[in-house]
Amino acid sequence: MSEDTPQRGFVAQEFENRLARLQQGMRAQDIDLAFFTTEAEIRYFTGFFTQFWQSPTRPWFLLAPQSGNPVAVIPEIGAECMRRAGVKDIRAWDSPAADDHGLELLCETIVELAGEGASIGLPKGRETALRMPLADFEALTLRLPGARFPDITALLLRLRMVKSAAEVEKIAHACLSAGRAFDRAPEAIHAGMSEREAFQAFKILCLEEGVDDVSYLVGGAGRGGYRDIISPPSARRLTVGDVLMFDTGCVWDGYFCDFDRNFAVRDVAQDVHDAHAKLWEATEAGLEAAKPGACCADLFHAMAALLPGAGSAGVGRMGHGLGMQLTEFPSITASDPTVLQPGMVMTLEPSLGLGDGRMLVHEENLLVREDGPILLTRRAPQRMPVIG
Amino acid sequence: MSEDTPQRGFVAQEFENRLARLQQGMRAQDIDLAFFTTEAEIRYFTGFFTQFWQSPTRPWFLLAPQSGNPVAVIPEIGAECMRRAGVKDIRAWDSPAADDHGLELLCETIVELAGEGASIGLPKGRETALRMPLADFEALTLRLPGARFPDITALLLRLRMVKSAAEVEKIAHACLSAGRAFDRAPEAIHAGMSEREAFQAFKILCLEEGVDDVSYLVGGAGRGGYRDIISPPSARRLTVGDVLMFDTGCVWDGYFCDFDRNFAVRDVAQDVHDAHAKLWEATEAGLEAAKPGACCADLFHAMAALLPGAGSAGVGRMGHGLGMQLTEFPSITASDPTVLQPGMVMTLEPSLGLGDGRMLVHEENLLVREDGPILLTRRAPQRMPVIG
Repeated sequence: MSEDTPQRGFVAQEFENRLARLQQGMRAQDIDLAFFTTEAEIRYFTGFFTQFWQSPTRPWFLLAPQSGNPVAVIPEIGAECMRRAGVKDIRAWDSPAADDHGLELLCETIVELAGEGASIGLPKGRETALRMPLADFEALTLRLPGARFPDITALLLRLRMVKSAAEVEKIAHACLSAGRAFDRAPEAIHAGMSEREAFQAFKILCLEEGVDDVSYLVGGAGRGGYRDIISPPSARRLTVGDVLMFDTGCVWDGYFCDFDRNFAVRDVAQDVHDAHAKLWEATEAGLEAAKPGACCADLFHAMAALLPGAGSAGVGRMGHGLGMQLTEFPSITASDPTVLQPGMVMTLEPSLGLGDGRMLVHEENLLVREDGPILLTRRAPQRMPVIG
Repeated sequence: MSEDTPQRGFVAQEFENRLARLQQGMRAQDIDLAFFTTEAEIRYFTGFFTQFWQSPTRPWFLLAPQSGNPVAVIPEIGAECMRRAGVKDIRAWDSPAADDHGLELLCETIVELAGEGASIGLPKGRETALRMPLADFEALTLRLPGARFPDITALLLRLRMVKSAAEVEKIAHACLSAGRAFDRAPEAIHAGMSEREAFQAFKILCLEEGVDDVSYLVGGAGRGGYRDIISPPSARRLTVGDVLMFDTGCVWDGYFCDFDRNFAVRDVAQDVHDAHAKLWEATEAGLEAAKPGACCADLFHAMAALLPGAGSAGVGRMGHGLGMQLTEFPSITASDPTVLQPGMVMTLEPSLGLGDGRMLVHEENLLVREDGPILLTRRAPQRMPVIG
């Protein structure tokens, strides 16, 4: 590993800051208790970090009062990991239990922290979900008939949207590591390999270059463009004239990069080179526009102006926030009014339909700073690199 | 890849069977329409397969009427992938949109398929969650005041619990591929490496041996045992006297293995070897008990009888179902009454507290058949292999 590998984890101050900002927002909205159930939310406020969330068996709860420390109400199997994260108040139950999935303990803890008629804020809006059995949530509302459950999505998105310096370092490290894997792609991938073989080879390159996980790798290959950018790789062999695209969400210390690169398999038609150049130019325009005070729609229109037929590729946006999740709020759409602020990390992701269902995409990751954006990815070459 | 790599995907009949069994259960419960929102549910009934679910931006909906074909109500970006999966009736909306996250289209489609006063079944119980903004679900119930939303968790778990031959093949292939990576661990992992370096080396071995993704790799190392089995790897260096454990959920064609292996770093104390032998024997007893007609609690007690102090390791169960998700219903607990049936794929996962917070775990994967269980994993050696 190179000397400039960032520190893993966060200093305690990071979580104190996040909590303080949350509690400030809660006071402004008269929320007594914030209630979180998902991986990203609980990790954001505690540092509790595990892949164990992939198991759907157990619910996990975090309660943050308007002042004071957060309280974790979690299955016993996670108590040690939560203690290591620095959470002081942990209420654990034996799970899986025959009937009760922590609901009893959750109710008791809510009443202890905020009384029976509390205002319990939880994220209920866009980009969110409730990760617990719906029947248990319904039971919770019945057991606490005086409680209210207002939506705190806007508050949560506003907090998470602006990254700390330590968060940016992690994203940047994921970007640079995956970037080295892209540099090495031509040494490992060749015409004649199946898409699946090419994907496996690329995943190994990413791990060799120091990412923790290749959590997301989609892409496509096809003569003069691809038709779908979210399907798994197929058995189809890479053929001269194909464009091969990898779109990767590699993770380092719990933070994602999300960018793609296109490769020409030996030689592609001139219209494809032209389309790639157009996307590259559109990305330049997006980058130019990504200044504090601009809104997401401004970025969209800056890129769309260079892309006749923009939107025809069905992607629905030209970039998004990035951080603990592969995609985060906000979205770069024609109407999104979210104003860019220093500390926001965004992807620029213009796409272009080429007719006939074929498409091309291009993506970079950037940080918004006071004095303008900087790229976290090393800029893609204007002309597609060649795979032999 | 070896000649016995199974076919990828499924024949259309597989999805017809799943749907027919669902619809049979819906008729028995008087459910007009089944409503699904999660990756596993939608893939189970359609074959729609993508890592794109990692993006929380967009909700996805599948509606299955009591008879006839399912209808997908999804963002435009997934339409091509859903078409390839063979779904005929796709209603797509441009997403992300400024206000509406598909709710309008969802409501219309529900009313078209089942009327305004329908009984709309959805999974609301253990192991489930609703993957859509809660506020949108609340709005849905208000827009359809005559509709009811009964819980169909039991039906869904009953269906998914019993695997088809094609599903078993995929799980078995993941097990064997990861097994070869475990065989090769001593060639790549040595005392003096950090836990992180050991994890990276093992992930690369898994990919080289043919798994599609190392979606889950947790574990631990420590002198004479480990203290936590869900945390990410640390910077701590493997030291003579450590036990190193990898617990891996590798994925092949969308299906998981989930098993672990322990390694002695050069030499471990005799009490650790003894504990490993006890876990191995307990697994034998669980395997012996895993016959059709036995219930999960029988398996638990068969293993617990050989493990004094069982449960002290805080894991909460000694195995679980396995398939499209790392862990699936049912759980092997002291009280789970679920009866084993041919076609169920289970893990056996006894654990043992060694005092002082140290623990050891051991795990195998099996298929229940008419004439008894067979292992899908190649049985772990009774004595821990050594890492040099």
